[in-house]
Amino acid sequence: MSKGLEDIQNTPADVPLDINRVGIKSLKLPLEILDKQKGLQHTVAEVDLSVDLPKEFKGTHMSRFLEALASWEKKLSYESLKKLLLDLQHKLHAKQAHVSFVFPYFLEQKSPASGQVFEMDFLAKVEGNMKGKELSFVLKVAVPVMTVCPCSLAISDKGAHSQRTFVSITAQIKKFLWLEDLIEIALKSGSSPVYPLLKREDEKKVTENAFSNPTFVEDVVRNVARELNDLDNILWYKVEVESYESIHNHSAYAIIESFDATKLNKS
Amino acid sequence: MSKGLEDIQNTPADVPLDINRVGIKSLKLPLEILDKQKGLQHTVAEVDLSVDLPKEFKGTHMSRFLEALASWEKKLSYESLKKLLLDLQHKLHAKQAHVSFVFPYFLEQKSPASGQVFEMDFLAKVEGNMKGKELSFVLKVAVPVMTVCPCSLAISDKGAHSQRTFVSITAQIKKFLWLEDLIEIALKSGSSPVYPLLKREDEKKVTENAFSNPTFVEDVVRNVARELNDLDNILWYKVEVESYESIHNHSAYAIIESFDATKLNKS
Amino acid sequence: MSKGLEDIQNTPADVPLDINRVGIKSLKLPLEILDKQKGLQHTVAEVDLSVDLPKEFKGTHMSRFLEALASWEKKLSYESLKKLLLDLQHKLHAKQAHVSFVFPYFLEQKSPASGQVFEMDFLAKVEGNMKGKELSFVLKVAVPVMTVCPCSLAISDKGAHSQRTFVSITAQIKKFLWLEDLIEIALKSGSSPVYPLLKREDEKKVTENAFSNPTFVEDVVRNVARELNDLDNILWYKVEVESYESIHNHSAYAIIESFDATKLNKS
Amino acid sequence: MSKGLEDIQNTPADVPLDINRVGIKSLKLPLEILDKQKGLQHTVAEVDLSVDLPKEFKGTHMSRFLEALASWEKKLSYESLKKLLLDLQHKLHAKQAHVSFVFPYFLEQKSPASGQVFEMDFLAKVEGNMKGKELSFVLKVAVPVMTVCPCSLAISDKGAHSQRTFVSITAQIKKFLWLEDLIEIALKSGSSPVYPLLKREDEKKVTENAFSNPTFVEDVVRNVARELNDLDNILWYKVEVESYESIHNHSAYAIIESFDATKLNKS
Repeated sequence: MSKGLEDIQNTPADVPLDINRVGIKSLKLPLEILDKQKGLQHTVAEVDLSVDLPKEFKGTHMSRFLEALASWEKKLSYESLKKLLLDLQHKLHAKQAHVSFVFPYFLEQKSPASGQVFEMDFLAKVEGNMKGKELSFVLKVAVPVMTVCPCSLAISDKGAHSQRTFVSITAQIKKFLWLEDLIEIALKSGSSPVYPLLKREDEKKVTENAFSNPTFVEDVVRNVARELNDLDNILWYKVEVESYESIHNHSAYAIIESFDATKLNKS
Repeated sequence: MSKGLEDIQNTPADVPLDINRVGIKSLKLPLEILDKQKGLQHTVAEVDLSVDLPKEFKGTHMSRFLEALASWEKKLSYESLKKLLLDLQHKLHAKQAHVSFVFPYFLEQKSPASGQVFEMDFLAKVEGNMKGKELSFVLKVAVPVMTVCPCSLAISDKGAHSQRTFVSITAQIKKFLWLEDLIEIALKSGSSPVYPLLKREDEKKVTENAFSNPTFVEDVVRNVARELNDLDNILWYKVEVESYESIHNHSAYAIIESFDATKLNKS
Repeated sequence: MSKGLEDIQNTPADVPLDINRVGIKSLKLPLEILDKQKGLQHTVAEVDLSVDLPKEFKGTHMSRFLEALASWEKKLSYESLKKLLLDLQHKLHAKQAHVSFVFPYFLEQKSPASGQVFEMDFLAKVEGNMKGKELSFVLKVAVPVMTVCPCSLAISDKGAHSQRTFVSITAQIKKFLWLEDLIEIALKSGSSPVYPLLKREDEKKVTENAFSNPTFVEDVVRNVARELNDLDNILWYKVEVESYESIHNHSAYAIIESFDATKLNKS
Repeated sequence: MSKGLEDIQNTPADVPLDINRVGIKSLKLPLEILDKQKGLQHTVAEVDLSVDLPKEFKGTHMSRFLEALASWEKKLSYESLKKLLLDLQHKLHAKQAHVSFVFPYFLEQKSPASGQVFEMDFLAKVEGNMKGKELSFVLKVAVPVMTVCPCSLAISDKGAHSQRTFVSITAQIKKFLWLEDLIEIALKSGSSPVYPLLKREDEKKVTENAFSNPTFVEDVVRNVARELNDLDNILWYKVEVESYESIHNHSAYAIIESFDATKLNKS
């Protein structure tokens, strides 16, 4: 006789401890993302979904995370993220639900002299957390920029080393914020933005602009932090700048992390 | 005439904001690690070093991080880590210094039937932070185990799916703790440890043991948390379990994070 | 006076050696792919584009690779790939052009008992090479399957270790072939396919099926090779099977590579 | 009654096809490597071991690969690699044996002005193949250098973009060759070597040297190929240069591959 489909997950935990998060991780999913310019863009995300699990239960029901995604609209916006979190709470009988989506996000970049337009990728992350009825969101973007070293420029008879530098902004927000707004702040923070398509006159302009505006990782991280401090919508942030030094086989990096409680009550 | 060697780092920051951490990242370094059994073992680490930087200074002096490493003994122990942190504070005129070392760490594993011995790798991280004169340490280990699914075992007429599962423990410690002690807790937390070298009689025993002890990721994370709760030396910990499911192309995962303030005053 | 836009790439090479390939690498690009079921699917690819460069020229013109992509339709099919290769030959004045696209490709998988449908990702690569007027294509897919160890099953009083195993097929084809056809061959080659969404009755069936069909990496690689040998369209192939052993912290792997010249003349 | 230890691997293959390579992959192993300056250096390698398997056998015996490593001296030289290959042929009853070791390799680099010395890492690979009694070796090194763009330098009123560029040399050799010899060729091929420790006077010199010697990826790949062409010991090589462009979010790359049959008969 065949065995029955016993629900072993529903038995009490052998070790009676609450679990903060349990769920599925690194699931790849094609979806659409709300896009400031175009309305929607297609991308492929890596998705983590989890809920809390009290000590009364040995296991969660992993298939329900997939079922929640299956019945979800697969268009990532604040509204749809909230729906997904509520559905997870409901389907998994959970107090707390957490989701994160990591994906390449594309924005058209225009070359500074010839005006050539081409899409460039930025790594982005959108996280949502529902604790009871309290909802919170965290956004992250990683943005490549060019940095020209101020020290090398000041002391060398010719030239200065430059490199590709990644600016990561992670921000807890009070209400809706475009990924584009964070990306824009990062793009302006180095010696120059980087571009996908540059004709010769563009390359000349990018080089000259960058050498007119040398920046250490310290300058970059401060440039971003100053902008974020001014945004009432951002309660907490972490800015990480990592520069793939062209004169070394290691990176230079700088971090500013900040929480501003006074923004909690600003409208 | 050649330019002079202006110390542009020493000028005031354009944007007057303090920086939490600035330094070098992803430097590869061969070194020795304190080893419970053998005294010392050789490995290769990826090293991050940083200090805080007040708004009075535009930049830190990156070469001094390398100089601190160059004059350091390159044998990683609690004493040597403390020396390195003090030297960074001193050389960089900093209030706060932070270092982290990530490296493969090897321990001999003995197969359960034939007693064959071979070294197996565990990814480890040692972090030290010096804030004024206050020193804190964080250890991390990632340990592979085997998990046999209790649900699959309960409902299937034959077999049950099993997989490689990674158990990560990150722990803030009050005083010295061996990496070996954390690794041992993790190795016991799944259905069976994994081994580098298994003869046929070992494979039989590992399989049978694992199938006598089926575990969900939820069981594994709780097994580890229970052990860590009992250690007075561990103030804060985070246990992450990720199972590379053999029936899916995604992972199952579970997390328990805990801070126990009452341990602060225990001796 | 500002410098002019000298075309330094067009000067002769300092070292007079021909270059096999020069171009751009690791560009991220959103695009659509020809899909057997749905017509088209959206994904994000990593793109490499290159041409040969004779010793008469110091450098190629990198921006033209981007211009070729900018004017390309961004729907990946054999026809569109051919157009892109011809355009690269033309724009770069090259004899040889080479492109490759690496991307996650999604197919709906249906669970074996409850019939639940959900998309699962497969890593895919499409390469095209144009040498003069001679065109050749290479396809690659990486497909996860489940393997149950025949040895462990034969010798253990209960259970057998199983794991996620990746089957990679790289194939040089004479004419059009669907990625789906290669994926299907790989999915059948192990003890069981893997699935995104499995209800309890599905998990039971997958487990039982897999334990009725134990396979070594050696079995899997041979199962795939036998199928590819029968396809006249495939001139050369390489099958790589890597199994993330659940009893070890290392993999088992097997490779069969084969070129069948007799297929050249078959229609 | 407990099951016996049946040798299921020794039964005939279900699908009668020869397998080119079967074995273990991605095993981490601490070892020592022959070092031109110091005699020996410690590192950690990722090891693949395989043999061929004829259609008469269903499976190979995976534990014997570990046993071969266990009884091996763990000091990597040409002599010891040959011993390991012979032992694999013997233990696995194989005609062909193949091993590869991938590891970070460290060489002291001296800064160009102040003469500061510090170790820098290079990724290296040593492969050995024994076919019957015929032995062949392949070496690979990946070496970071700095490149200053000749085009950007020629057309910009100030500055030029520079970046970290990786030079990979893969070479099939007739007889012993030091990794150091390949690394040295690569280090000289760009605008400047990169260094771990640079004081301000060093940074000035590196910058000025690099800007006096601008190089495209095309120049770098040709510089290396010219040197390799002159070495009678190298039968076949592939040089790959990838530049992490500081003005783009993608790379520029160039490849030269060459086989010189006339070197086969040179002594």
